[in-house]
Amino acid sequence: MTREHISLILVILYSYFRSSASWRVRIALAIKDINYEYKAVHLVKDGGQQHSEEYKRLNPMEQVPTLVIDGHTLTQSLPIIEYLEERNPEPPLLPKDSFGRAQVRALSELINSGIQPLQNSTVLEKVGDGKEEWARSFIVKGFQALETLLKQTSGKYSYGDTVTMADLCLVPQMFAAKRFKVDLEPFPTICRVHDALAELSAFKAADASNQPDTPDELRST
Amino acid sequence: MTREHISLILVILYSYFRSSASWRVRIALAIKDINYEYKAVHLVKDGGQQHSEEYKRLNPMEQVPTLVIDGHTLTQSLPIIEYLEERNPEPPLLPKDSFGRAQVRALSELINSGIQPLQNSTVLEKVGDGKEEWARSFIVKGFQALETLLKQTSGKYSYGDTVTMADLCLVPQMFAAKRFKVDLEPFPTICRVHDALAELSAFKAADASNQPDTPDELRST
Repeated sequence: MTREHISLILVILYSYFRSSASWRVRIALAIKDINYEYKAVHLVKDGGQQHSEEYKRLNPMEQVPTLVIDGHTLTQSLPIIEYLEERNPEPPLLPKDSFGRAQVRALSELINSGIQPLQNSTVLEKVGDGKEEWARSFIVKGFQALETLLKQTSGKYSYGDTVTMADLCLVPQMFAAKRFKVDLEPFPTICRVHDALAELSAFKAADASNQPDTPDELRST
Repeated sequence: MTREHISLILVILYSYFRSSASWRVRIALAIKDINYEYKAVHLVKDGGQQHSEEYKRLNPMEQVPTLVIDGHTLTQSLPIIEYLEERNPEPPLLPKDSFGRAQVRALSELINSGIQPLQNSTVLEKVGDGKEEWARSFIVKGFQALETLLKQTSGKYSYGDTVTMADLCLVPQMFAAKRFKVDLEPFPTICRVHDALAELSAFKAADASNQPDTPDELRST
């Protein structure tokens, strides 16, 4: 067996094509050039496959992603990305200096804990009537802060001219913003950074339109 | 001026006594033995002082905490704690091995992005009627997963017998759970770890009952 085959077998990503947390990890795996087996967890079908007893043993929060790697089972997207960064430092997803790292992590958390949890499918189901307006309001509030911060930190990408963890969070969040029909006109910096990232091969490979479980009608041709 | 005086002037924590994100950072500062000036940001008074133009310049998300340190302005509690960990590595708040670090970070994120954002004051205000039940439901869901994970990872504390970042998240979340009258009987491991942490001097110093802006009626005597 080639080295590539072994790596293919040993790394498994439990993912859902549209899940932004899964998507962040897919970009990291592509940037770090780590091969993996994709196991789809359909968040709607069968009442949500993430709630199965089998999957709950891997991920007690009943969320995607879960990454099996190096004999370990890892959960939570940002901790997974930090693990991949420590395991495969090149190319780096965090700056070398502590202040830069703190800024990139803060931009990432602004999305990871400040926006995404408030508009994920479980929460919106509980909101019921008015859920689209609910989702939009939290995305807009977060994007207002993100736009202000990116004006200070961005170069070509979110933090200078190198792709960082913050970019891995920005792209899937933009997909959700469009899905919920957020008016993007007040966010030119976010849009500019997003469009630059969308050109990169790792971001194309990880895109929601291009996964094994992407429905045919949403697939890019 | 003594060294202590200089450090007192240069580090400023913008905090609210009951904010769990502020509380996590207070514990980290106490454990790392970093002196700081406490600036209270009242999240309710004056329509929420975090919304003032002056504070928004420090923290565009209009949230606490903000930490001014080493000439930098840092936001988001976990990135701040990671910064403090890199700056003052002893005593450590993360394990030495990458898998251990990933586990501690995942336990922290389970609370930071999995529970806390869904029951903070801004969100509950938007929920309106039924907000207490809403808060309880997300705390219970998160605690069910946390209890399962802590059964695997805990020793005296959340991850083995050393205090980690996960513990800094657990204690304030437990305060919120009690505030929202969550039945804690199904969570014996969380309760055991919480009670062990509550004995430690750094956790006592950082407690919500013991801050400059703690109202007299909630103050421990």
